Formats: sequence, structure tokens, C-alpha cells
Amino acid sequence: MKTRAAVAFGAGKPLDIVEVDLDGPRAGEVLVEVKATGVCHTDAFTLSGDDPEGAFPAILGHEGAGVVVEVGPEVKNLKPGDHVIPLYTAECRECEYCLNPKTNLCQAVRSTQGQGLMPDGTSRFSFEGKPILHYMGCSTFSNYTVLPEISLAKVREDAPFDKICYIGCGVTTGIGAVAFTMKVEAGSTVAVFGLGGIGLNVIQGAKMVGATRIIGIDLNPARAALGKQFGMTDFINPKDVENVVDHIIQMTGGGVDYSFECIGNVDVMRQALECCHKGWGESCIVGVAGAGKQITTRPFQLVTGRSWRGTAFGGARGRTDVPRIVDWYMEGKINIDDLITHKMPLDDINKAFDLMHAGESIRSVVEF
Amino acid sequence: MKTRAAVAFGAGKPLDIVEVDLDGPRAGEVLVEVKATGVCHTDAFTLSGDDPEGAFPAILGHEGAGVVVEVGPEVKNLKPGDHVIPLYTAECRECEYCLNPKTNLCQAVRSTQGQGLMPDGTSRFSFEGKPILHYMGCSTFSNYTVLPEISLAKVREDAPFDKICYIGCGVTTGIGAVAFTMKVEAGSTVAVFGLGGIGLNVIQGAKMVGATRIIGIDLNPARAALGKQFGMTDFINPKDVENVVDHIIQMTGGGVDYSFECIGNVDVMRQALECCHKGWGESCIVGVAGAGKQITTRPFQLVTGRSWRGTAFGGARGRTDVPRIVDWYMEGKINIDDLITHKMPLDDINKAFDLMHAGESIRSVVEF
Repeated sequence: MKTRAAVAFGAGKPLDIVEVDLDGPRAGEVLVEVKATGVCHTDAFTLSGDDPEGAFPAILGHEGAGVVVEVGPEVKNLKPGDHVIPLYTAECRECEYCLNPKTNLCQAVRSTQGQGLMPDGTSRFSFEGKPILHYMGCSTFSNYTVLPEISLAKVREDAPFDKICYIGCGVTTGIGAVAFTMKVEAGSTVAVFGLGGIGLNVIQGAKMVGATRIIGIDLNPARAALGKQFGMTDFINPKDVENVVDHIIQMTGGGVDYSFECIGNVDVMRQALECCHKGWGESCIVGVAGAGKQITTRPFQLVTGRSWRGTAFGGARGRTDVPRIVDWYMEGKINIDDLITHKMPLDDINKAFDLMHAGESIRSVVEF
Repeated sequence: MKTRAAVAFGAGKPLDIVEVDLDGPRAGEVLVEVKATGVCHTDAFTLSGDDPEGAFPAILGHEGAGVVVEVGPEVKNLKPGDHVIPLYTAECRECEYCLNPKTNLCQAVRSTQGQGLMPDGTSRFSFEGKPILHYMGCSTFSNYTVLPEISLAKVREDAPFDKICYIGCGVTTGIGAVAFTMKVEAGSTVAVFGLGGIGLNVIQGAKMVGATRIIGIDLNPARAALGKQFGMTDFINPKDVENVVDHIIQMTGGGVDYSFECIGNVDVMRQALECCHKGWGESCIVGVAGAGKQITTRPFQLVTGRSWRGTAFGGARGRTDVPRIVDWYMEGKINIDDLITHKMPLDDINKAFDLMHAGESIRSVVEF
């Protein structure tokens, strides 16, 4: 079949909106009509050419929501008409990782997904007879896409596509880091470094689980009001204090119980660790650092009881946890609407990248 | 009263065996006759002058066992004749730390202890009219010493002093790191870097809790036989393999569930983290690094599910957990006897340091 898609033909160039060819689903695969997709920093990172694993030409996009159109042979749990969210972290429920309750990093389709291919080692997309790569197993910048069944979360049908698409990455990463990876307890004190789309979701995750004090840290003073809207109790602009670590330790009487780095800056990752409370404070790296960057601290920080951890996709097991987060949204436990600051048709998708780079958007959503 | 003690009059000098003056116990304090004491690397570190917090003159020693001789006013839980192990990490059961189940780092006497003083800010020891400092709140290189009641674990009376003194530091640090801090589960795969006194106790702790595979790593080939005696299943000499991290990942099919660094070398701390299994491997820093040293890794290691942690005194709450470890020894669950390679009277205590520096002893014990 033919489908319209925004194609990244090379690093550093705008996406081209073209009609591409899409093969139907093979065994274990599902054809999905994408109804809406968010545009995430990770798409921009790969498009920039800085991502050492980025390959072109490819159809980017990994934060979508849509409807099942057709299922291939051996598909057991989905049927045409089902509403789904594509998962860049699959959940096969059979591999060594899925069977270990400590991780969400299903490895079932990892190696082919990393190469931009379906599990059988081929691509379903082509343009003018030449194959185009998939991206993060999702390629939601195409109106129609094909995914493995294990890479789709089935969700309730009354949830709006233009909001729940954000649960495919940003919302789950932030809320999951709090609820699934770090298991923040009610009454905790939390610090959140970087109040972009991820950081604001960490804040509302911390609020949802009952954290008492939620400290947001950002260089942009405009983020203070936004943070408060999502549950932040205190705001620190690092420009206004001599030493942000000392300041947090002082204002909390010893440090925070949990901290989250949502920027991808290795120096801030160190600050996030060192503002944790001696004896029990735990710091979680959520942001993705540039290639080759390293984190550093004194081992004394860990020997005196702090822990340094990280999260990917918020520790969520997609098929199990994403439908729960959709429920939380529909029940009003979390706010997605106010994070989606811009909407546009596919033809304008390059504007979404411009808005992101200018710091003007929290999240832009493309509706097909 | 008068008591014989090995006094450190200055950094880098041998200890002097002299008779010092000891004041009796004040409110909340207890006079203890030390029956035996281990000589630990931490004593040597302070004596060397490399410890930035070391101060002189002082009576070192923090790994002892003895008998209560006299109790001061307000002492509630101990009486003359009780057998006790001094604790360099107190357990007051009342401070913010003791009341938090995530830590063992009681802060009740921390600041005065760090200055070599009793909680009232004075010393009980003096020599020729001038005060001598306490050390780590214990000073077990004196035949008699005074401690706060909350810094003494009461233990069973049938346990031999010359063995259980080692539970005052090395045994508890190693076994506790496994059982209390990391809570290693039966069936786990464990790597232990450095097979000295601490590393061998980590090995027997891992064996006690039912770890299936216990990999020991040491540059000294003589440690292979000793490690196996305590439960090690595999030995790696880093000199024999190209890359110890890759080697461990290969031989375990992805990395270990838990690793322990028992040397104090920041490069080895990185290896210990990076040989952990993606998704769930956790690394624990047990060794004490030199002043100013830093640990480094790529944040990717944490984002893909590894955790970096540390332990002090094995996460043990001394008054609660030390008596349990004495029971484990008396029940034959752990082996202390074969770790005590040398015994000597107080007059020969400097030989214990020589044996340690020559790598000839696992542990030397001084009997009074």
C-alpha cells in the first residue's frame, strides 16, 4: 500500500513529506493507522546526526497512538479496530528480561530494532524501490506503519489519540521514573533537575504518589509557573544561588530522598546525586547524555548511603503499564493536555522541531 | 585508673606501648576491659598520616571484644560482666537515621567521635597529664577503654573473644554488605574484587545467603585456594585475561547480579559496576578510596539498569545485627577461625602492621 510519511533522507536536513510504499504485516506483525504522534528530543537528536546509532534514510517518530488496521498470521492478542500505542521498548513476556521483575528492558526485538529493521531483518517501508529504515521500532511519522505485536500496547477506546500519543514516550518516562523505577513513597522529598517535558512529568508523577516536597530546578524562570501548575512546591534558578547542591541540602535539612536528572548534562547528574540525603537518598538519571560523556563523583557519596541509578522508558513494561497510565489520564490523576502546547498537520512537522529548538514548546503533536 | 595501651603519638611512627591514665565512665558511658582486638587496614591508614581526618596522639583500634567492668549513671541496658563488642557505628535507636529503615548510619555521637572525643566533648585518656584522643569511638588498642552505651553490642558469653573481635569490623562489613546492604538473593551470581579480609567475608556472606556462582578477582594467585575455601566458585587473575569486565560478562552470559569492590581502587570500582548485568545488576563499593579520588563511568551504564551503591559497616545496625552475626559464627554458618592468621600480645602489635603491609596476614589479633 501507499502511505504519506515524513522521511529523514539524511542527517541535519528537514524531513520530506512524501508518499512511500508499505508492505503488509508478516507473521506476528500488525499494520497500524497512526492517528497522532508527538515530536520528541530523541527524534531531533537522531535527525541532527549526533546519534552514533542513527542511520538514514529512515522514518522517525516513536510517540504515537492509532488503530489496528490488519494483523498478520500468528497475531494472538490484537484485532482490527483495537486502539494501540506503539512501544519502542517491547514486552514479549518470554525473554530473560521480561521474566525478571527488576527490569523492563525486553530484548526480544532489540538487535533488529537497533538496525532499523523488523524482527525478520527486513524493512516494510520503501521509496522509489529502495528500502527506508524503521526507527525505534515505531516510525510514527508515517500515517501507516507496521510493528511486531509485542511492540503494541492495547488501550481503551475512549481515550483521545492526540493526548495519549504522549504516553508513548515522555509521559511514561517521567511518571514511570517516579512510580516504577524509583518507587517514590508518599511523604518523600524530591528534586527535579530540568523542567522540560520529562521533568514536568516527573513532577506530576511525584505529586501523584504523594511526595510532600517537590523542588524544581531550571535556568529558565518561565518554568517556575509551569512547574507549580504540575505540583512543584519550590523552584530554584541555579543562577540565583551560589551552589545549588548546598542550597538544596540546606533547605531540606540534609538533602532530598529522591532526585531526577531530566536534561542529559553530566555535571547536573553529579549535582543531582550529591543533593541527595546521606544514608538513603537515591538519584535517577533520566536524561540522555551526549556520546562519550562521563559521570563522576567521589566514592564517599555512595559509601555514605546514596545510590546512583537510571531509567529507560520509566521502567514501564509497555503492554502492562501503558494502559494503566492511559487510565490515570482518563481518571484525571495526571494532566497531559497542558503539556501539549502545539498541534499541527504532518505537512508542518518541521515546525515542531523549530519550536523545540527555540524552547517555545513543551510538546508538539502532529495529527494525521 | 591506669591501663596499658598502644599509643599513636604521631603519623608514620610505630605505636608505643605505655601506661596511660583512664577516667571512669560518665553518664551514659561504660568501662570495658578489652580482651582481644583485630588490627585493620583502617588503623594503618590513619597511622600512616594519609587519613585527612586523623589526629594525634590517639589510641587506635576499632575491632575489639571484651567485658563490661563498670557502668556510669543512666546506663540502662548493660551491667558489669556483660560481654560486648565495641561499635564504631553507634545505634541510638532514636535519631532520624536509626528511625529510617534504609540506613545504619546513626548520627547520635558522630561529630564528637570524629574529633576523637566522648559525646561530652572530652577525652577519658591522658598520658603525663595531657589528653590522648579516642579513635572511631572505640580505642581497642587499650586494655581498658570507655564507650557510650549506644556504641556497645551485647553478645552471648560462650563466644571466644579472640575470634568475635573480628565481627567488630571486617566480618560484619563483608557479610553485611551482602546480607543487609545489597540483600543478595539465593541463586544470584556475584563478583568480588579483592580477596583480602573484607573480600573473603563477602564471599562467605554470598555463600551463606545461597548465591550460586561466586567469582573472585585478585592479582595474587595465592588467594585462589583461600577464596575456594570460603565458597568462591571461580577465580580470575586480571593478569591472565585481556579485559576482566568482558571476561566476566562472557563467562556469566551477560554479567553478574551483584558485584563488590573490596580494595578501595577507583578504577576497579568502575570495573565492578560495568561487569554487572544490564537491566538489574547492582554494584556495591566496600573499599575506601584515597582522599580526593573519584569514580567515573558513562551514564549509559545506569540508564540501562545498573545501580551503583556503597556500604559502611555492612549496613549493620550494630546493637541489633552484631549479636546475630556472633550467633551465625557460633552456629557454624560462617568461618572466622581460618581468617585469623596471626595472634600476638600487645607488646608485638607493630608486627601486626608489618604483616599486613607485607600481605602475609589476612587478620592479626592482639590478645591482652
